[in-house]
Amino acid sequence: MTHWSEWSLIYESFQPNQEKLREALCTLGNGYFATRGAGHEARADDIHYPGTYLAGGYNRLQTEIAGRMVENEDLVNLPNWLPLTWRINEGDWFSLHTVDILSYRQELDLKRGVLLRSVRFRDEQGRQSALATRRLVHMRDLHMAAVEMTLVAENWSGDITIRSGLDGRVINAGVERYKDLNHQHLECVDSTVLDRDTLFLQVQTTQSKIRIAEAARTRLFQNGEPVGIEWEDKTEAAYIALEGTVSLKKGERVTVEKILALYTSRDHAISENGLAARTAISRAARFSDLLMTHSKAWANLWQRFGMEFEEEADEENRKASLILHLHIFHLLQVCSPHTMDLDVGAPARGLHGEAYRGHIFWDEMFIFPFLNFRMPEITRSLLMYRYRRLPEAQCAAQAAGYHGAMFPWQSGSTGREETQILHLNPQSGRWIPDNSHRQRHVNAAIAYDIWQYYQVAGDMKFLCFYGAEMFLNIARFWASIATYNDKLARYEILGVMGPDEYHDAYPDHLRSDRHGPALYNNAYTNVMAVWVLWRGLEILELLPEDWRRHFCEKLSLTEEEIRLWESISQNMRIVFHDGGIISQFEDYDRLQEFEWETYRARYGDIQRLDRILEAEGDTPNRYKVSKQADVLMLF
Amino acid sequence: MTHWSEWSLIYESFQPNQEKLREALCTLGNGYFATRGAGHEARADDIHYPGTYLAGGYNRLQTEIAGRMVENEDLVNLPNWLPLTWRINEGDWFSLHTVDILSYRQELDLKRGVLLRSVRFRDEQGRQSALATRRLVHMRDLHMAAVEMTLVAENWSGDITIRSGLDGRVINAGVERYKDLNHQHLECVDSTVLDRDTLFLQVQTTQSKIRIAEAARTRLFQNGEPVGIEWEDKTEAAYIALEGTVSLKKGERVTVEKILALYTSRDHAISENGLAARTAISRAARFSDLLMTHSKAWANLWQRFGMEFEEEADEENRKASLILHLHIFHLLQVCSPHTMDLDVGAPARGLHGEAYRGHIFWDEMFIFPFLNFRMPEITRSLLMYRYRRLPEAQCAAQAAGYHGAMFPWQSGSTGREETQILHLNPQSGRWIPDNSHRQRHVNAAIAYDIWQYYQVAGDMKFLCFYGAEMFLNIARFWASIATYNDKLARYEILGVMGPDEYHDAYPDHLRSDRHGPALYNNAYTNVMAVWVLWRGLEILELLPEDWRRHFCEKLSLTEEEIRLWESISQNMRIVFHDGGIISQFEDYDRLQEFEWETYRARYGDIQRLDRILEAEGDTPNRYKVSKQADVLMLF
Repeated sequence: MTHWSEWSLIYESFQPNQEKLREALCTLGNGYFATRGAGHEARADDIHYPGTYLAGGYNRLQTEIAGRMVENEDLVNLPNWLPLTWRINEGDWFSLHTVDILSYRQELDLKRGVLLRSVRFRDEQGRQSALATRRLVHMRDLHMAAVEMTLVAENWSGDITIRSGLDGRVINAGVERYKDLNHQHLECVDSTVLDRDTLFLQVQTTQSKIRIAEAARTRLFQNGEPVGIEWEDKTEAAYIALEGTVSLKKGERVTVEKILALYTSRDHAISENGLAARTAISRAARFSDLLMTHSKAWANLWQRFGMEFEEEADEENRKASLILHLHIFHLLQVCSPHTMDLDVGAPARGLHGEAYRGHIFWDEMFIFPFLNFRMPEITRSLLMYRYRRLPEAQCAAQAAGYHGAMFPWQSGSTGREETQILHLNPQSGRWIPDNSHRQRHVNAAIAYDIWQYYQVAGDMKFLCFYGAEMFLNIARFWASIATYNDKLARYEILGVMGPDEYHDAYPDHLRSDRHGPALYNNAYTNVMAVWVLWRGLEILELLPEDWRRHFCEKLSLTEEEIRLWESISQNMRIVFHDGGIISQFEDYDRLQEFEWETYRARYGDIQRLDRILEAEGDTPNRYKVSKQADVLMLF
Repeated sequence: MTHWSEWSLIYESFQPNQEKLREALCTLGNGYFATRGAGHEARADDIHYPGTYLAGGYNRLQTEIAGRMVENEDLVNLPNWLPLTWRINEGDWFSLHTVDILSYRQELDLKRGVLLRSVRFRDEQGRQSALATRRLVHMRDLHMAAVEMTLVAENWSGDITIRSGLDGRVINAGVERYKDLNHQHLECVDSTVLDRDTLFLQVQTTQSKIRIAEAARTRLFQNGEPVGIEWEDKTEAAYIALEGTVSLKKGERVTVEKILALYTSRDHAISENGLAARTAISRAARFSDLLMTHSKAWANLWQRFGMEFEEEADEENRKASLILHLHIFHLLQVCSPHTMDLDVGAPARGLHGEAYRGHIFWDEMFIFPFLNFRMPEITRSLLMYRYRRLPEAQCAAQAAGYHGAMFPWQSGSTGREETQILHLNPQSGRWIPDNSHRQRHVNAAIAYDIWQYYQVAGDMKFLCFYGAEMFLNIARFWASIATYNDKLARYEILGVMGPDEYHDAYPDHLRSDRHGPALYNNAYTNVMAVWVLWRGLEILELLPEDWRRHFCEKLSLTEEEIRLWESISQNMRIVFHDGGIISQFEDYDRLQEFEWETYRARYGDIQRLDRILEAEGDTPNRYKVSKQADVLMLF
């Protein structure tokens, strides 16, 4: 950010090394799909990464690595609808890297949800041009997106050739460390040019067989009037494109509008998604109308979700305001009113890129307090994503020898555990157990989310139809994972991992007297388990009598089991040390103090201590260090 | 029905000419899919019509008829999962038509949602056997269905060969008068045998590209123990089947269980629907467990939806009870708690066959009073089916020169008008305009449904997010279709059809002084339009201030338009005749009296008077006759 206002993120120069971060921060989305803030002339390379993602648009691929078959489910990078570029007199296609940039301004307008870019530049022939684009991913009509591009021939006359494309050759290449995995998630189903000026591309994910259709209409205007243009079909394989040429005189300008309709085979109210996209584009309005309805939709959202400082707008407050707006903006682009009618969760990294593969962790817990009070219908929908995966969570619990439902740490399409169980250490070539799926506390988070939603929305119908069933299954899981320690006359939870990912197992000197992986009696987990059991009992009391009976029968919930829940909730072991400090987990106090100053002096930035220590052949497991709040989450 | 109890529809003999009606009445379903009550050995022919239908499972096909291309959207008959038959010692496969039936009993157990059939029979070789089947379409797990078949060798010993299949060769052939239309809606994607005893068939609808996967596991048991059996793959093209042989001694019995998992590409919480079906079948319980959970689900439904007579159970009441239970049973098999998570409406003929092509008319209006008070979450979901098609209804209004939203008389996948605009008179070979799409009163019905739901459920959130927008758009439509008659100083609605389908246009002697098709000033339509406008104004008052503002802005609803609504609602023309009788439509009194006695004497059953008159070259349009309640609907 080189400049800013309370409602705008503004960059006033082009910085190649900052571009990927900016693309993420300038992502536009509407809860249904999102597109990164890459330029319309950009291709995936070291500097740029255009990416378009569909909420819940997953695909699974297998890769053989070091003799082992690994399967990953990814949020698929959809065909790039952005391509819109031009050249003068058969010269090179526009590139920021080959021209002399005279001025540059990129602005993310948070209030209206529009990404703007204006560039003035001089090419090698000394021709000066000005370029301005406005882009939106429509917040009212979830299937639409649009861009308007204006070109000015400042000091030259000549032909300008416009190229508009839909690029289906894309792969998932947004995350460097996934690069050795298979990444070809799409196959082309159909590509054609409709009505002369409209591109149509339909692809299908290779395994999950989700069909995605994009139809894009490109039209030119001068002085507000349509310009007749002969479009030439320049399709190459899965990259479908049109080129057309128009003459400009010195000082003249031409405006190009590219309107997109995107439909998938998972959509409601369609016959076939290709037909839906074609119909939508044939009915689509012009950019200015789309901008108007889109801005109104954002105005409505801000009216409901906006947060402003009451105090005088000094420099500090204005900056804080921008940051607040930016966070809300991106949250609403992932979890929007459209989410209510989708089967999706809240991915850890939003729909902004490919990190964490678009998986759903426990992040609802952090956004619920904000959303619950403003539009609880959205949080209800995120909980329905969990409810639909309750049977899978029940199977997972059963397979692990527990009762009830065990939701996964990483959840995708089906709700199976998407966390890798092993990961390959590239240095040693060995497969190392990955304990992070043992973050069972996600099951406390989901229960907590249900309860928070119920408390705020007072939605007893949700509790009866969906919430209570999930909650009671989760309570049952906690009761079954807890074991009774005769010696201490306390219940314990062994073999889990807390929120702090620097600690996934005991160091060698503490491991010998234990069996099983991961840690014992993580305080956060144990306390939350008690909370779930208490609340589970409370929910049983809260339910209308017929529903209570229904669940007791459906779950074969006996008085005996209810007494067990009471007993566990009153006798859970919480480990303390140094006379009153809650231990993050059992024997945390026997870990070594970390030499903070030494490492800070040696490395400077020690934010990713885990990587530093691993590179030294060491592990954070040995030290009193924390990556995430763990015990502190309790307060 | 040859016998009955309050909770059972019982047939005690096999009646070939009654079979198709019985199959419809013995349909089992769960709101997600349904299967007609055909025998497991039956194939589609003159007597039997096995059919399985998915809620919202439509496909479009074009047919050239008399030089014109006609497109129809049908509810697709899915692969038949029922096939389960047998033969003795390489003899003929079992058929009711070739054996001597000693006893026959078919029972639809409404309380538990189970279809039972038991047959004792003797074949040409004098071998007596007993056959008993129990079938269910699971009411808790919407993807599952199951059959249990028991065979007893009463007076013989020998080999019995079991054949279990999934038949993907099916077409839509359930309605005689559609037989000249294309009816091949499915293409095979994959068929294979899994784990020796499991059939897997995946098909795709030809145009809408919905994928349907069926996985069926067949296992044999004797004395409660599994019987090892060598299954042989007998697949022929899209008919995938297994055959296995087991020896029976005189008096012995064998039980066959066939469990089905059915998933489609439109399902939630799946990666790919074939994988989902395979996973589900690998986890599937045995028949007895499925029966238990299924019966419990029905018990819960009856607890909520059951209706009993308070009086003494005399013969009359018991019969009325059965009829009541039967209607509720079938309604719940079409609109079940599973409907809440589906994008479907209530088809005129349920999921019980192919008549009306599974289209959605105005039938919600008749079932809402029942469902609203018992599980308004279902009616809310049916209204969401409409809401998702609001944009299509807006386009339809615009295309017809009106404002707001004009929902279609027949609605399918997208919400476009699915009613044929022309129909071919096979006698004359001429294409005749079909005015039935002019039953605009469906737009009053939808508004009425919204209001009823809101009144019963008090669901202001629904009204704000969805209901009001639909309602106001419908009100706007009525205001725009009404025209002002200067001479009478009244508003009129011209060119529509009322609910009575015997009247779709004026007879010749009344037509000359009119332009446009259909009828003028249908009283039901005009009064309901006034009702919609009144309630539209009331809803504007009811809405929270921010929502009111939101809609006025989104719809550009001005004070002027609101005043127009008021004016129309106070000055609508209702035509009366004979000094106080409401005319069904303008000039109804100028129609001829019908010669009831003559026709009754000539034809006996005159229920389909339209067909009788058309065969005579006449039309009901000339007479004072009614097929449906029209004016009476107002009271």
